[in-house]
Amino acid sequence: MRIGIDIMGGDYAPTAVLDGINLVYDMIGNSAELVLVGDRDIAHTYFKKKQINTNRFELVHAPEVIGMGEHPTKTFSQKPNSSIAVGYRLLAEKKIDGFASAGNTGAMFVAAMHTIKSIPGIIRPCLGAFIPKTNGHTLILDVGLNPDCKPDVLYQYAILGSYYTQYVYNVPNPRIGLLNLGAEEEKGNILTRATYQIMKGTTDFNFIGNVEGNDFFKDEVDVVVCDGFVGNVLLKQAEAFYTQIKKRKIQDEFFDLFNFENYGGTPILGVNAPAIIGHGISNQIAIKNMILHTIDVTNSKLTEKIKEVFQ
Amino acid sequence: MRIGIDIMGGDYAPTAVLDGINLVYDMIGNSAELVLVGDRDIAHTYFKKKQINTNRFELVHAPEVIGMGEHPTKTFSQKPNSSIAVGYRLLAEKKIDGFASAGNTGAMFVAAMHTIKSIPGIIRPCLGAFIPKTNGHTLILDVGLNPDCKPDVLYQYAILGSYYTQYVYNVPNPRIGLLNLGAEEEKGNILTRATYQIMKGTTDFNFIGNVEGNDFFKDEVDVVVCDGFVGNVLLKQAEAFYTQIKKRKIQDEFFDLFNFENYGGTPILGVNAPAIIGHGISNQIAIKNMILHTIDVTNSKLTEKIKEVFQ
Repeated sequence: MRIGIDIMGGDYAPTAVLDGINLVYDMIGNSAELVLVGDRDIAHTYFKKKQINTNRFELVHAPEVIGMGEHPTKTFSQKPNSSIAVGYRLLAEKKIDGFASAGNTGAMFVAAMHTIKSIPGIIRPCLGAFIPKTNGHTLILDVGLNPDCKPDVLYQYAILGSYYTQYVYNVPNPRIGLLNLGAEEEKGNILTRATYQIMKGTTDFNFIGNVEGNDFFKDEVDVVVCDGFVGNVLLKQAEAFYTQIKKRKIQDEFFDLFNFENYGGTPILGVNAPAIIGHGISNQIAIKNMILHTIDVTNSKLTEKIKEVFQ
Repeated sequence: MRIGIDIMGGDYAPTAVLDGINLVYDMIGNSAELVLVGDRDIAHTYFKKKQINTNRFELVHAPEVIGMGEHPTKTFSQKPNSSIAVGYRLLAEKKIDGFASAGNTGAMFVAAMHTIKSIPGIIRPCLGAFIPKTNGHTLILDVGLNPDCKPDVLYQYAILGSYYTQYVYNVPNPRIGLLNLGAEEEKGNILTRATYQIMKGTTDFNFIGNVEGNDFFKDEVDVVVCDGFVGNVLLKQAEAFYTQIKKRKIQDEFFDLFNFENYGGTPILGVNAPAIIGHGISNQIAIKNMILHTIDVTNSKLTEKIKEVFQ
């Protein structure tokens, strides 16, 4: 298995990424070959300084960088030699089996749509994030790729989230909840009321009904489906809480789980190959976890399983 | 000034409400007369037991109760002698100057629309809630009355929130933020992108631009405007965090501010008279605060000021 890593992606790139690669190298042994995508000179200088044998890795030169704040669509077409564009090209040409970056999320998504493309039948690929609960995590999706959704899009999210948690995290028969403002079937906005009607009685996934904003942290649901606007706002509020927890020097093992720096990212669900987006603020631990997660996602054959169900 | 209080409203009614009334009585002195609306026998039994002189209060008998879980619209028409219906009737007939209840939120809203009605020009009245920040509170509105909103509705929320915080909380020139998934003008869903366009450059309120889910708790914004779906989910997530804080026995003065039991409720903004909705879980402290807030809102002439601007 060959895993491509964008060494230029993330707020602390390239150092944090290269440190993370260094950290993970011995852990993965022969299970995967790492293909580093980015500026060759920067990588060589780093390896030299750290006295690391460059031959451990394949290096694919990509002299351009898409900045964290740059406009995704414009920049992607203007920088064909950026690490993100080159990485996706390798993925589309099957020269690598998975690609990971902690860089510009929008650009990662736009590039995916232009290169590896959506799985036929998928209306809109999506991106999830994990929110800790008292024993494990709840996947919330979408968290920002699609701020406006229709019921059939949320229905597909439920399938994608169900497959992802089942095959990558080994959650048996994942419980899927529809984020709403009340537990009752008739509660909600136009979107959620219509979505409830197409989800109820489904055999495509284990629909447990509506869940509310205060149902997080309980072990009652594995995947929460919502439009990307709500998901984004919720996720950021959770981050803001964690920031306050840290600022106030509160030590607590549950709240420590909210340290998003340590998360390894999640795959874009619904595209034709494993593309994993890490958090922009990733430190070396997060990069290490992002690489391990990319190996897990690739190993799980998640993409192939999703393709089968949408055939 | 005469303030009506629904003694049957709330999860712990009537005891918590009567305890709260008892608690507040000496504090308000001659500034307001309290008119208790609800079951006369229950009130009398309580006063007798507590050895309180019933003559302190005017008592308006309302033998029916709208339960916390009952369907708002149906129940309101089926129970014309419920404490909520009777209270609003008094308010509409100007026999009281303000009305407060910690009862069924939906029924409080439906009853308001049927009795005191919207201020002409207001498309949709709304309900806010306060989320603590490090020095004070941020008003978020709407938090559930209107799960589907159009840009002109959000624009009116901004005016309503601006007036409410300015005249009731004495915040000078309140900073109004549009809840969104990015800081930039072009970010958002269809609703927020269109709303941004009509808000920018306005002189009706102090628009500071987009705010994100992680901008809460900072002292950068006084009023956050969003549709009732997002507001509801956000507020409930904040409650869920507080529940975890308590469960884990974390003592912290900032997080203690999230104890929603102590909040006195907020007025329905955009109706023709002060109607204050308290939190269902109100204890006697919350009821006390709800009554004090109703007096403040009535004193501030907020309703009259809003009417003037929408003339």
